[in-house]
Amino acid sequence: MGRIVEVTDVILRDAHQSLLATRMAMEDMVPACEDLDNAGYWSLECWGGATFDSCIRFLNEDPWERLRAFRKLLPKTKLQMLLRGQNLLGYRHYEDAVVERFVAKAAENGMDVFRVFDALNDLRNLKTAIAAVKKSGKHAQGTICYTVSPVHTTEAFIDMAQSLKEMGVDSICIKDMAALLKPQPAYDLVKGIKQRCGADTLIHLHAHATTGVTLVSLMKAIEAGCDIVDTSISSLSLGSGHNPTEALIEMLEGTGLTTRLDKDRILKVKDYFTQVRGRYREFMSEFTGVDTEIFKSQIPGGMISNMESQLKGQGAAHRLQEVLEEVPRVRADSGFPPLVTPSSQIVGSQAVFNVLMGKYKTLTGEFADLMLGYYGSTIGEKNPHVLAKAEAHAKKPVITGRPADLLKPEWATLRKETEALESNNGSDEDVLTYAMFPQVAPKFFKSRPAGPKNLGKDPVKKDATAPAPAKADSKTVSAVQAAALSGPVSYVITLHGKEHKVTVAPGA
Amino acid sequence: MGRIVEVTDVILRDAHQSLLATRMAMEDMVPACEDLDNAGYWSLECWGGATFDSCIRFLNEDPWERLRAFRKLLPKTKLQMLLRGQNLLGYRHYEDAVVERFVAKAAENGMDVFRVFDALNDLRNLKTAIAAVKKSGKHAQGTICYTVSPVHTTEAFIDMAQSLKEMGVDSICIKDMAALLKPQPAYDLVKGIKQRCGADTLIHLHAHATTGVTLVSLMKAIEAGCDIVDTSISSLSLGSGHNPTEALIEMLEGTGLTTRLDKDRILKVKDYFTQVRGRYREFMSEFTGVDTEIFKSQIPGGMISNMESQLKGQGAAHRLQEVLEEVPRVRADSGFPPLVTPSSQIVGSQAVFNVLMGKYKTLTGEFADLMLGYYGSTIGEKNPHVLAKAEAHAKKPVITGRPADLLKPEWATLRKETEALESNNGSDEDVLTYAMFPQVAPKFFKSRPAGPKNLGKDPVKKDATAPAPAKADSKTVSAVQAAALSGPVSYVITLHGKEHKVTVAPGA
Repeated sequence: MGRIVEVTDVILRDAHQSLLATRMAMEDMVPACEDLDNAGYWSLECWGGATFDSCIRFLNEDPWERLRAFRKLLPKTKLQMLLRGQNLLGYRHYEDAVVERFVAKAAENGMDVFRVFDALNDLRNLKTAIAAVKKSGKHAQGTICYTVSPVHTTEAFIDMAQSLKEMGVDSICIKDMAALLKPQPAYDLVKGIKQRCGADTLIHLHAHATTGVTLVSLMKAIEAGCDIVDTSISSLSLGSGHNPTEALIEMLEGTGLTTRLDKDRILKVKDYFTQVRGRYREFMSEFTGVDTEIFKSQIPGGMISNMESQLKGQGAAHRLQEVLEEVPRVRADSGFPPLVTPSSQIVGSQAVFNVLMGKYKTLTGEFADLMLGYYGSTIGEKNPHVLAKAEAHAKKPVITGRPADLLKPEWATLRKETEALESNNGSDEDVLTYAMFPQVAPKFFKSRPAGPKNLGKDPVKKDATAPAPAKADSKTVSAVQAAALSGPVSYVITLHGKEHKVTVAPGA
Repeated sequence: MGRIVEVTDVILRDAHQSLLATRMAMEDMVPACEDLDNAGYWSLECWGGATFDSCIRFLNEDPWERLRAFRKLLPKTKLQMLLRGQNLLGYRHYEDAVVERFVAKAAENGMDVFRVFDALNDLRNLKTAIAAVKKSGKHAQGTICYTVSPVHTTEAFIDMAQSLKEMGVDSICIKDMAALLKPQPAYDLVKGIKQRCGADTLIHLHAHATTGVTLVSLMKAIEAGCDIVDTSISSLSLGSGHNPTEALIEMLEGTGLTTRLDKDRILKVKDYFTQVRGRYREFMSEFTGVDTEIFKSQIPGGMISNMESQLKGQGAAHRLQEVLEEVPRVRADSGFPPLVTPSSQIVGSQAVFNVLMGKYKTLTGEFADLMLGYYGSTIGEKNPHVLAKAEAHAKKPVITGRPADLLKPEWATLRKETEALESNNGSDEDVLTYAMFPQVAPKFFKSRPAGPKNLGKDPVKKDATAPAPAKADSKTVSAVQAAALSGPVSYVITLHGKEHKVTVAPGA
C-alpha cells in the first residue's frame, strides 16, 4: 500500500552517451542541476562509463573537475557512476592498488553510488572494486549484465545475485544494456532474487529502450518488488537510450505505487534539454524507433555500427549480413559472453575477420586473450578447436585464475610516468587519468589550461521568407533552396577564361 | 494457458494518418499486402477515418476503388474501417437512409469490420450505423471513446459497454485516441467490461503511443482479458502513432500468451515501409518522442497544432499558453465531451475565440450547436450561462432528441445533384462521395480520369564523395556542400551588367 518506487535519472551520463555520442559539455548540464537536485531522485548517474574518455579526448575537460562540480551543484542527491570493475574506465585490467586508489579518489571527490560491472560477469573482476567502495563508506552496487543465451538462465542470474550479496554489496543492479529483458523474465528475475537473497535486498533495474518493450519490463519488475529503476527525462530518451522518466511516473497511477518525483521540476529539465539536444545534432544517433531484430541477432545497435565502419574500411560493406550471422557463432565459440564493452567489440571484430579472411584464419590479439581467460571466465564452455588456435596464435597458456593476479604493482611506475608529462598537476587524479588513457592523457594535460570545449552548435537560423526545401520539385531547385537557407554564398567561377568571385543570394 | 492475443495492424490507415498526414498513395501500400495478408492478423485497418477525404482531396484516388483493391490484395484477412457513426466520414450528420446506403456499399465493396464511434459517446448517433452493419451481415464494433474528466468514470464506461452490447454489437472497442489510458485504468476497464457484459464479450483496444505509457496499458489490458489489440509495424509507429507490432509480439514471451503473427513476414513489411516513409518526409509529423503533458492539458497533439495555426493567422501566436489553459474550461462548460474529431476542433476554436475576443463574447456556430445538443448529448452538465448565450447567438432551441431525427430524406436530392456533376460515374458510391465532401467531390470527379497522384518523393541521391555537411564549420561551407550533394547547379548571374548562365559543380 503506497510503496515508493525510487528513480535514478541517467540524463547526465548514459542518456547522452547513448544518444549524443557522450559529447555533452559540462556547461550544458549546469543549468539543469538545481531542478534535478530538487526533483526527488534516489540518485543521479552523472559520471563514469564513457564520459571520462570523452572529457579528455573531445571536450578538453578535466573529468575530476566535472565530478567536483556535480558534487557542488547537486548537494541533496546521491551521485552515481558506472565502473567497469577491474578495468576501471579504461580498456585493460589494472592491478588492485590502482583500482583501490581510483575508488578512494572518486569517493573523496564526491561519488556516492558505485555501480560496478564486469563484461563477463566474472565476480573475481568485481571484488577489489566492491571492497574498495565498502572501505570508503560508499554505496557498492554489484551488477548482473543481463543477456540471453542457452547458458544464461534465470536461475544462473539469481545465483550470481546471491554471490554478490555474499560479497557485501549494498544493492544489486540488473543491467540490460541491449534491451533484451522482456516483461515476464524481468518479473521472474526480480521475484527470484528477492526470494533467494531476502526481501530487503535492494534491486535496481537499468534497461535501455532499444527494443521498445522495456517500459513494460520496468512495470513487471516493479510489480515483482524492484526498488529502484533507471529512466531518462524524455527529451533525451528512447531510441538506443532509456525509457522516459515522465512515462514511468504516469504509468504507476492507480497502482498504489508512486515515485517521489516532482513533475514540474522534471518538465523544466525536459524543456531545457530539448533546446540543448538541438545543438548536438551532429552527434545524434540516427536511430529513433525500435529494433526488435536484436532479440534474434543478440547484437546491440552500437556494435552493428562499429562492424559496419570496420567493413567499410576494408571495402566490404556489402558483407554485413554475413557478419551479423557470424556473430552468434563466435559468441558461442567463446563461451557466450554478454555483449557489452569490451566483449562486444572483441566478438564483433573477430566475426569481421572470420568473414573476410576465413573462419579463424586470423585471430585478433584480444579475441585470443578472451579465449584463453585473460579477461576472466565465461559461464559457457569454449570451443576446444578455437581454443587450440588461440593458444597457438598467442603463444600463451590458458589461465583459470583471476587475470589481475598476474599483474605486478604499477602505481609507482604510473606516478613516475605521469610526473614526466608536461602540465600534469602532480595529483593522484592525474596519475589515474594517465593510467586509464596513456595515449590521450599527455595531450590533454598540455591543452587543459585552455579550458573546456563545447562541441554543441547553435542551429543555423532559418530565413523565414525562403521557400521550404521540402517542397522542392527538382534537384536543382532543392540545392538552390538549401543554399538560400543560410544566406548569400560566394563562389569563385571561371568564365571566359577569367576567375570571378560571384555571390549568390536567395532568389538569385 | 496458451491464450491467443489477436492483433489488428493499422499500418494501412491510422499509422499514416497519424504520422504522414494521411498522404500515402495506394500504390505504395500494394507491395506490402501479400506479406500483411499472410502474417496472421485478426484484421487490417485500411479504410475510413481521414483516408476517404485525403484520397479525393490530395491523391486524386477513388476511395471506393482503393477499397476494392484492398479486398483483392488481402483475400485472407478481414478488412476493417473507422466510421464516425451518423457523420459517416464527413463532418455533419446524415439522414438514416444515407447512413444505411453507405454501410451497404462499403460492405458490398469488401469491408468486414466496421468500428463505429461518436465523438460524444452518444449511443443514438451509433445505432443506425450499427444496425446497418448487422443487416449487411458484417462485424459491428461499438466504440467507447476513452477520455479523462471528472464525469468519466470506469463505471460509466462499463455502463456504455453494456448499452453497446444490448444494441447487438459483435465486439467493443476502447478507443484511446489521445493516449490517456494508463495501465491500471486499462486493467480495471477491461476487467469490468468482462464482468458486466460476459467473459465472451470481445474487447478490442485501440491506443495511440503519444504519452509513452500505452504499451504497458496494452499489457495490463491483455492480463485483464482483452482479446484484440491495435498496433502498427515499427517503421510507421510511435510518436503520435501507435505501439509497434514487433514490440507487442516480443513483450508476451514467457507469459503463456502469444500472438499468431509471423515475425519474418512482419520484418519484410517493416523494411518495406522504412523505404516508403522516407519518400513522405514532407508530410511527416515532427513529433517523435513522448508527451506526457497531455495528461495535464487533456489536449491531443494534433489539436495543439490546429490552434497554433489559428492563432498565427490572427497574429497572436504568443497567446498559445492562455489558450491551452482555456481549453479545459471550455470543455467543462460544454459538458466534458471527449476531445476527438469534430469535438476537439470545436472546443479548440472556441477557446481561441475566448482568449482573443473575450470570454464567450463571440461563439462559433459549431460551438453553439454543440451546446444546444445538435451534435448529441454529453455525459456532463452544460454551464447554463453559456447555454443561454448559445441560444441567443444561434437563435435555435436546445434539442434533447437524436439530432438525425431532425433531418429530412436527402438521398434523392443528393443523387440528383451528383448526376449533374461532370464525370460522375452514376454509381451510388459517387453519390456517397459527393454527400460527404460536396465541395471537393465535383473537382475530384473531373480530375479522376487522370488517375492517382503519388505525393511521395524519392530522396535526393547523396554524392558519396561529397564531404559530410554535418562537419561544416561555417555557413558558407555548409551551403556549398548542401548544393554539392545534388550535383552541378546552374545559376543565372549578372556580372558587369550581363547575364551569364553559370554551372557550379561539387568542389567548385
